Amino acid sequence: MPESMNSVPSASDIHAAHNRIKAFIHLTPVLTSQTLDALTDCEVVLKCENFQKTGAFKFRGASNAVLSLSDDEIIKGVATHSSGNHAAALSLAASLRKCDANIVMPENSSRVKVEAVKNYGGKITFCKPNLQSREETLCKVIAETGAVEIHPYNNYRIIAGQATVAKELIEQVDDHLDYIIAPVGGGGLLSGTSLSVRYFSPGTLVIAAEPEMANDAWQSFMQKRLIPVNNPQTMADGLRTSLGSLTFPIICENVHSIFTVSEESIKKAMLFVWEYMKIIIEPSSAVAVAALFENKNFFSGKKVGIIISGGNVDLRNISF
Amino acid sequence: MPESMNSVPSASDIHAAHNRIKAFIHLTPVLTSQTLDALTDCEVVLKCENFQKTGAFKFRGASNAVLSLSDDEIIKGVATHSSGNHAAALSLAASLRKCDANIVMPENSSRVKVEAVKNYGGKITFCKPNLQSREETLCKVIAETGAVEIHPYNNYRIIAGQATVAKELIEQVDDHLDYIIAPVGGGGLLSGTSLSVRYFSPGTLVIAAEPEMANDAWQSFMQKRLIPVNNPQTMADGLRTSLGSLTFPIICENVHSIFTVSEESIKKAMLFVWEYMKIIIEPSSAVAVAALFENKNFFSGKKVGIIISGGNVDLRNISF
Repeated sequence: MPESMNSVPSASDIHAAHNRIKAFIHLTPVLTSQTLDALTDCEVVLKCENFQKTGAFKFRGASNAVLSLSDDEIIKGVATHSSGNHAAALSLAASLRKCDANIVMPENSSRVKVEAVKNYGGKITFCKPNLQSREETLCKVIAETGAVEIHPYNNYRIIAGQATVAKELIEQVDDHLDYIIAPVGGGGLLSGTSLSVRYFSPGTLVIAAEPEMANDAWQSFMQKRLIPVNNPQTMADGLRTSLGSLTFPIICENVHSIFTVSEESIKKAMLFVWEYMKIIIEPSSAVAVAALFENKNFFSGKKVGIIISGGNVDLRNISF
Repeated sequence: MPESMNSVPSASDIHAAHNRIKAFIHLTPVLTSQTLDALTDCEVVLKCENFQKTGAFKFRGASNAVLSLSDDEIIKGVATHSSGNHAAALSLAASLRKCDANIVMPENSSRVKVEAVKNYGGKITFCKPNLQSREETLCKVIAETGAVEIHPYNNYRIIAGQATVAKELIEQVDDHLDYIIAPVGGGGLLSGTSLSVRYFSPGTLVIAAEPEMANDAWQSFMQKRLIPVNNPQTMADGLRTSLGSLTFPIICENVHSIFTVSEESIKKAMLFVWEYMKIIIEPSSAVAVAALFENKNFFSGKKVGIIISGGNVDLRNISF
């Protein structure tokens, strides 16, 4: 097991992760919008992981984790519980090693997400829609299969994989970025982003964006101790999870501020990006855009990178 | 008045148009999708004019027309009747010359379209929602203002401008394209596309895509005479117009086939692109994608370019 599995990823761990996954991921584009710049008085670049394979940045972490395992370790497959983007990402990543991905999903998961996991070859075990049932069912699946658990964010290989989003963004943008805004749920993307910024763009400040209705990261950050939320109802379904024991200390050390945003402003930001930039982003990504709109004075005159985390929306259920 | 105003655009007219507008338009990206390729057994590239300024290719033609006029010609402004993308495009193009854009719009035009024209500085005169009222009101506006009429498609400068979409696509794609599919309404984009293909990629075949419910181009093409449609109800609102006297002969001479598609398949194609490619395209663009899906055997094994004409959708009225 490489050292990086047991300690905060170093710059060279993130370089290694990027080299490991580069042939399998998309180099996603950075987009700009004159209208967005005019409305915010900023120079904004969006790093568009909605164009990533499986429709979200999660494929980076999942493929780094899967590709890091030895042949012996992976022979019995990988496993996780997830109702969202990590489930699809791990399923596709497992196919790179031709191993099984055992996915525990709540029985009320959306049709679209279940289909995505199936399409990528994941083997689904359904459970009751609560954390206890998810964890118990996962334990059972792991006991039966001998699969390796790949946690969606509380895993240094996952963090190193997600860190490649900001690393790429920094490489793609010629000028120095004053800020990078990333959404925070479990903290895999945010902690990875903050590490890449520390190593590859010191001086850039990392701002986290979080729904008011799932503000565990903000609470934890302010009080310097982990305060999980229980079943928050924000529309930003990717950000309903709470910070993990591995992601929280990295975030405390390397993130400048956490800004929370209302549901109304998440919806407005999503509509803006769909309507004016013509790209589909999911509510969790709109949270980061909303943080810019809600704090115009703070960002005014600055060069701001925003990480668009994904674009998986059940269009049959959408209405503005 | 340059010669090109009165005759079918030549290769050098299209080069000149491209050079004239290059500094003002976006060089829109070409996108690919492994899922789309797998589903159709083709190599498909989408030329994404939904990312063009004003959200549609129409800005190319409008800016070429406006920039081609002399200072004397344009001093009293430009005018058109349009309820759609040409209205917004001409308004923005007119601002490049700091002249008035007088836009006649039906009083039942959607809020979004009226707002877009206003945002780009167009001066709106409302009329009754029928062709007679549109034309009469436009005549009145022109008599009062002395503005130059810029027809949305039956104008060689417009056609030369729209031709730059296919010219760019051909330049952006390394390999030879077997087919280029473009939607057809009034025929400005299609006729321009067919000219660029003839001049810059001979051997590529141009396929037009048209809604069954507005199949005037198909009827006209088959019977070799102009057969307009009256008020068709297709969801592809950009394709409800009929071919013009200038676009029809170019299309007859240079287009290989016209494929018509059902409303159901337009909707399915639009959902596919939104869901899997994460970009917003309007129903008129989905018509071209639907033509590929509905004719898989015809296109199988080929390299196919599809012109995504625009991305202007009233999201508040959308439901899948």
